[in-house]
Parts: sequence; structure tokens; C-alpha cells
Amino acid sequence: MREAKVIYSVRTCVPLPPSREPLPLNFANSQALFRRAAEVIPGGIYGHTTPAATLPGATPYYAVEGFGCRYRDLDGNTFIDFLCGYGPMLLGYHHPEVEDAATAARARGAAFNHPTPLMVELAEALVARIDFADWAVFAKNGADLTSWTVMVAREYTGRPKILKIRGAYHGTHAWCTLGHGGLIPEDRAHIHDFPFNDVAALETLFALHRGRIAGLILTPFHHPAFADSELPSPAFVAACNRLCREHGTLQILDDVRCGFRLSTGGSHSVYGYTPDLSIYCKAIANGHPLSAAVGRAALKPAASRVFLTGSYWNDPAPMAAALATLAVIERDNIPARLAALGERFVTGFLALGEKHGVPLRASGPPAMPYVRVADDPSFIRTQQLCAAAVAEGVFLHPHHNWFISAAHTEADIDEALQRLDTAFLNLSLSS
Amino acid sequence: MREAKVIYSVRTCVPLPPSREPLPLNFANSQALFRRAAEVIPGGIYGHTTPAATLPGATPYYAVEGFGCRYRDLDGNTFIDFLCGYGPMLLGYHHPEVEDAATAARARGAAFNHPTPLMVELAEALVARIDFADWAVFAKNGADLTSWTVMVAREYTGRPKILKIRGAYHGTHAWCTLGHGGLIPEDRAHIHDFPFNDVAALETLFALHRGRIAGLILTPFHHPAFADSELPSPAFVAACNRLCREHGTLQILDDVRCGFRLSTGGSHSVYGYTPDLSIYCKAIANGHPLSAAVGRAALKPAASRVFLTGSYWNDPAPMAAALATLAVIERDNIPARLAALGERFVTGFLALGEKHGVPLRASGPPAMPYVRVADDPSFIRTQQLCAAAVAEGVFLHPHHNWFISAAHTEADIDEALQRLDTAFLNLSLSS
Repeated sequence: MREAKVIYSVRTCVPLPPSREPLPLNFANSQALFRRAAEVIPGGIYGHTTPAATLPGATPYYAVEGFGCRYRDLDGNTFIDFLCGYGPMLLGYHHPEVEDAATAARARGAAFNHPTPLMVELAEALVARIDFADWAVFAKNGADLTSWTVMVAREYTGRPKILKIRGAYHGTHAWCTLGHGGLIPEDRAHIHDFPFNDVAALETLFALHRGRIAGLILTPFHHPAFADSELPSPAFVAACNRLCREHGTLQILDDVRCGFRLSTGGSHSVYGYTPDLSIYCKAIANGHPLSAAVGRAALKPAASRVFLTGSYWNDPAPMAAALATLAVIERDNIPARLAALGERFVTGFLALGEKHGVPLRASGPPAMPYVRVADDPSFIRTQQLCAAAVAEGVFLHPHHNWFISAAHTEADIDEALQRLDTAFLNLSLSS
Repeated sequence: MREAKVIYSVRTCVPLPPSREPLPLNFANSQALFRRAAEVIPGGIYGHTTPAATLPGATPYYAVEGFGCRYRDLDGNTFIDFLCGYGPMLLGYHHPEVEDAATAARARGAAFNHPTPLMVELAEALVARIDFADWAVFAKNGADLTSWTVMVAREYTGRPKILKIRGAYHGTHAWCTLGHGGLIPEDRAHIHDFPFNDVAALETLFALHRGRIAGLILTPFHHPAFADSELPSPAFVAACNRLCREHGTLQILDDVRCGFRLSTGGSHSVYGYTPDLSIYCKAIANGHPLSAAVGRAALKPAASRVFLTGSYWNDPAPMAAALATLAVIERDNIPARLAALGERFVTGFLALGEKHGVPLRASGPPAMPYVRVADDPSFIRTQQLCAAAVAEGVFLHPHHNWFISAAHTEADIDEALQRLDTAFLNLSLSS
């Protein structure tokens, strides 16, 4: 495959796989390996990538390689990817500048007894880019730091309670998981949730727990699974800012999924939030394992009192990858590019729905769009549409927002739309 | 530096740095960067690698590269490393077989929408190696999985309570952190601790909370900071096994620090524990970020009901690194090699103490030894001894157990002892 014709720009100088696979797609290898996996792994595949969350039988279960905006599965099928690893893949699989930086760092060693200078450089880079940030810390998972910022808020305020958006995902720790297994009542004794954009519900919680609320944790917009995305209303953002200020409650922005896709300097500025703490992950190092939290100067002493560490957290390679990723984001104004590409994709997608008589509903910002069949409460028709798209080599998730990457070109978007045109032709929706 | 004479075996075919630095060591660059870091990072360096935990002023604060069993700091000082990144560095920095495997995997992409086949291969490799294991799951940090196994124990038993060894480290999550910041009482409402090796205390807890204890979480031996390591007494191990069996309590072995250093198949077999769940991390992928939990078949349904996932957990490179690491561990019987090297080091170290009239006390298994000045309750003399060792280019931690790596040769151990001989000569201990 490495001998395939190189048609990418220097930005993504890796070979493209063949642009068309014969239909029908075959998932026999994926399915056979999944059966083997089920012997030695609970559920075969667990977590957000479980086939049960997409379309069992109609999607690949195992990936083997990715180039730019495309990936290949275990059966040799290739897909234009609109899920992007659920977010980490911002600049494309195997982005040369990022990989070169990570490889050079890795070649000098990993997981030392001390940090490397890259940790300081990266903290400085985040403080320089994120307007409210005075300091940064690093970990491996988003949840490492959503949980830690909750503890920092409790340490700073001396209060126990945390308000969160109902159904918002902040990781799989007991205080916030969307799963049901293994919980005890004490895990959420001081966690209170409210519907997104519901100013009255938020005001009620602040009144009810006056003087007891350490933090309000938010996502920039609401991106639940099995539902449309919702952008925040200006009134909701204003209420969040005002109530936090009035009650001495810290505003924590979980920017894990959106960070650096909507803005070069954190997503709070897009919608007008005034966070005290923000968490980044996913896109920050284009797939290398790293998360970061940033905060205001006033919180630095409290932050230094909440013990935070992990075995691999000094590993320089992901930090080198993050520095390279942040440089590309800024140099190429990646968020603007994603917005334009996403706009082109969503507009074209909606036009195809109209052409084929399938009413569609789009939600979310164009860089992280989600399109589903309108009037489809069970998601069955949306699943059928996504299965038809996958069969044409376009990977779409029926229940989770999508992601545009900077490795998608206008030509890739147009090719995807052309394939979707065929998908609509092949589609027979349940009535 | 890359042109330095290559004197390593094929197992560690990387160049050694010069074997001797002029004294006194200079940490000016480390200290200047630390001051810069303190502007943008709470505490400058946080977590277990904070200079405050070792010897401020007498040790490096920043590493820049590692080869085999040695690393170089930001001031150009090199050290024979007996901390090994606090555990991940099992086969030496930049081990060629591990790095080649990881690089090959990384070149095919990372953080896909699906796992890669490596996940299945790795689960099968663990199940094949660990006698009681019927299944495996993977994450990034040890704490991801100590916390998850606690939830699995609660899910399986329907009980809330967890017993743990007093002072044992299982991560920085609120239920188990050894820090004090940001905690609320509910975090530990059902966590009860007991002194290591104290059978009576353990029996009392089991009697007091009869029918309410989901799990007993253990480390193979007790390796607290600021204390000697303690090996488990046969009576303690027997009591753990018997009480768990009698009370239907799951035995969880936190093998994060010890795993694959004491045995090729998990440390439970070394001491006779009968775990239901074990967690591995650190050494499993020679520094690539990966953790794993394994469990018995009966727990598989409960395990599949406790949601577990993370943004980078499908990343194939660390799984490829783990497969390569496990293969080397088995092929070269690494635990036996570490035990022999550790024995040589500790025996030589104690002899030096005798020679120089400094009574020493060694504890822990030879592969993970800890040697301190005897009768030193404040650790001041142990700190002076470690500072003298560091000044001679031997990195020792005054308050944390040490690690031998497979990249240490007998010659490296002997060189370290020779340097320690000089360190003892230069040592003037507080009275």
C-alpha cells in the first residue's frame, strides 16, 4: 500500500488508499476477530467504540491503518472518516509534522524520573493561547482532569457540590459516568444536574444549594449521544457566568471534545463563557495521549494542593506532538478551515436529503456536525442512512456527533457527498 | 552523542553516554527552568516527580534523554538510573525491540474509531500468561483500572465497602489518593483501611462489615513512601485468601508497580495470593502508556456492565509495545535477571555501609530494593546518602523503593557500587 500514488499536499504527505472499494463491503474478518475477542475481553469491545453503539453487522469492528482523512478496516475496506477517532484526529492520521515531533522526542526516551523541558514549553504555549489561562497541568485522559478540576473547585471553595448538565459526558469516573454499573449513592451525593440551556433550572439549583456549590461544569455546547446537539443560548451563557460570579462558584469548562476545533484558543470564547478552569484532550496532540487543564492564577495554590500524577505523565512524545499540533492549528487557522469544510459537508448533505425526499435535521457547529433523519425518535432510519453511507465508504455514526478534520479537502468532502448520493439511492427507510 | 561508542548488547543496542562527569554536578539549568515552570505550572512540577519528594538542590529536575539504564539531565549530567521512571522502564530506555514494534504500529495510525487487532492479541497474551486470568481490559493509567475494578467488585457483589492497606498507593482518585486536597467525606464513606500484615485488624474489619464488603484491594508487598518496604507474611496472605473466600469478597491485586518485575505471570504467584482481579501498568509496555486489568470468568458479565473507556485507549502503539515487552520478559526471564542483579546491588551496597561504618537497612524484594541508613527516623541521613550518590552519578531516591532494569548489566551494577564507594567517602552524615 505504501507504493500508492502520493497525492496529498505536504501538510498530509501520506499515500491515499484506492478511492473505491467493490460493493458490498465485507466485514467477515472484523466479525471473526470480534468472536475471538469476546472470549478474552468483556463484551468483546467495550466503551465508546463498542459495535453495539454503532451498527452491528453494518460497520467494521477493527481498524488497521489510517492515512489523512481515511482509514482501512480489517477486511480491507476503506472509509472517508467523519468520526475521526471520536475526536483526536484533528489534522489527519499520521500527520507528518506531528509524527516527526513525537518520534524525535520518543527517540530520546520516555517516562523519566523527571519531566522534560517540553512540559514547560507546552504549559507556556497554552497560557499564551488561552486568554484566561495562567497555568496548565497535564495528564493522559480527559477524565483525569475533569475529576481533578472538581477536586480543585472543592479545595478552593471548601464546598462539596458540583452542578452538571444532565446527560453531559465528562468521563467514566463514578461521579460522572453515563453508565449504570458499579455505582453507590455516595458517588453522587453532591452532584446535581440540570437540563442544558435551562436557565430557570440552573437558578433553582443555585438557590437551593446556596453557599454549597463548588463548581459548575459545562461543555461548550451540548453533544449528547442519541440526541441532537444543542448550541448554548446567549441567555444560558450569561446566566452561567452571572450565577458563578454571584455565588463564588468556579466555572469549569470541559473542552475535551470541542477544544481547538472551534477556536485556536479554547471554545469558551466562541460562546462567551468565562471559565475558571478548562480541560482539553482529544485534538490537543492529534491522537497522542495527552490531556491538559488550565486555570486562573487565583486557583494556583489550591491546584497545587490537589495531588495529581500518573505513571506516564512526563512522557515527552505526546507533549512534543501537542506543541506541533498547536503550532499547525494556529499557523493554518484550523478551526476556520474545519468550519468551512463542515459547512460544505452539511449543506451538501441536506441538499441530498431534499433531492431524495428524505427530510434531515442538522445540529451542532459545522466543524462537529450531526445530521440525522428528521422525525426518527427510535433512530432506526438514521441507522439505516448511516449503514448505507458506510456501505459506500463514508463512515458516519448514527448516534454521536461527527468530526471534520483538517486532512479532509474540499475534494474529499465532495467525494463523500457523491458517495452519499449513491447511499441515498440504495436506501430503503423503515416506514 | 549518537556517535558515542556502542558497547551494549543487541538487547540494548543504543549508545552509552560518557561514563564519568566532572564533580561537582551542576543543576543550574534544571533550577532555572524550574523557576520558569513555576510561573505557568502549579508547584512548578507536580505529582510524584516533584523535586520536593527527592532532594531539592541536590538532584536534577528535568531529564532530556535516556539510553539503556542511564539518563541525562538538562545540565548534561548522566546517571545510572535506579528509579527507572518510578517503574515503567523495565528493559531500558529506548529498548530496540519495543520501540520498533511501537513505531511500526504508530506508523499505521492511532486513536481510530475502532480497536485494532492488537487489542485482541494482547488480551490473549495476558490470559495465556496469568494463571487465573480469563479476560483483560486496557486503559492508560493504573488508577483508571484500580478505580474500575472497585466498581466491578461493587457491581458483582452489590455491596459498597472496600478494604485497603493503610498508606498503600492506588492512584490519585478521591477514594484512594494519598493527598489531602479536594476531598469530601463521601469519597471514602465505604473505604476502610488496615495496617499491612495485620491479620487481626483485617479480621476485625471483615467481622464489623460482614456482608457489606465488595472488595479487598492489596499490593503484592507493601511499598509505602517514607518507610521500609514490607513483604507479606504467609499468615497475612492466607488470611486475605481465606477471608475473601469466606465472605464472598473479591480480592483485587494492584500489581501496577510490581507486575512483571517479580514474575513473568503476575506477582500474586510469588506470595500466594488468589486474586479475582489484578491491575498491571508501568512495566507492561516499557514506558508506553498502557494499563491492563485481568479477571476471572465469573466476573466477566459484571465487568461488561461497568462502563470503561477513554479517548486514546484503542491506540495500537502501546499495545504493540506491550506485546514486545511481554515477549522479551518471557524469552529472557527478566524477573530472574532483575532478582540476580538486585541481589548483587543490595549485597554490595550493604557491604559498602559496613566498610564505611554506616549501618544500613535493606528492604523489599531484590528486584525492587530500598536501602536506607538505619536508625534514621527523619530520613535526613538517608537523604544525605542519596545526595552523595547522585553527586557520583548514581540516581537513588531517599523515600521511595528503587527499581532494577534489565538494561543494567553486572558491569553497570559494579560501576554503581564503585561510585557509591566514593559517595560514602564524601559523605558526612548528620549526627
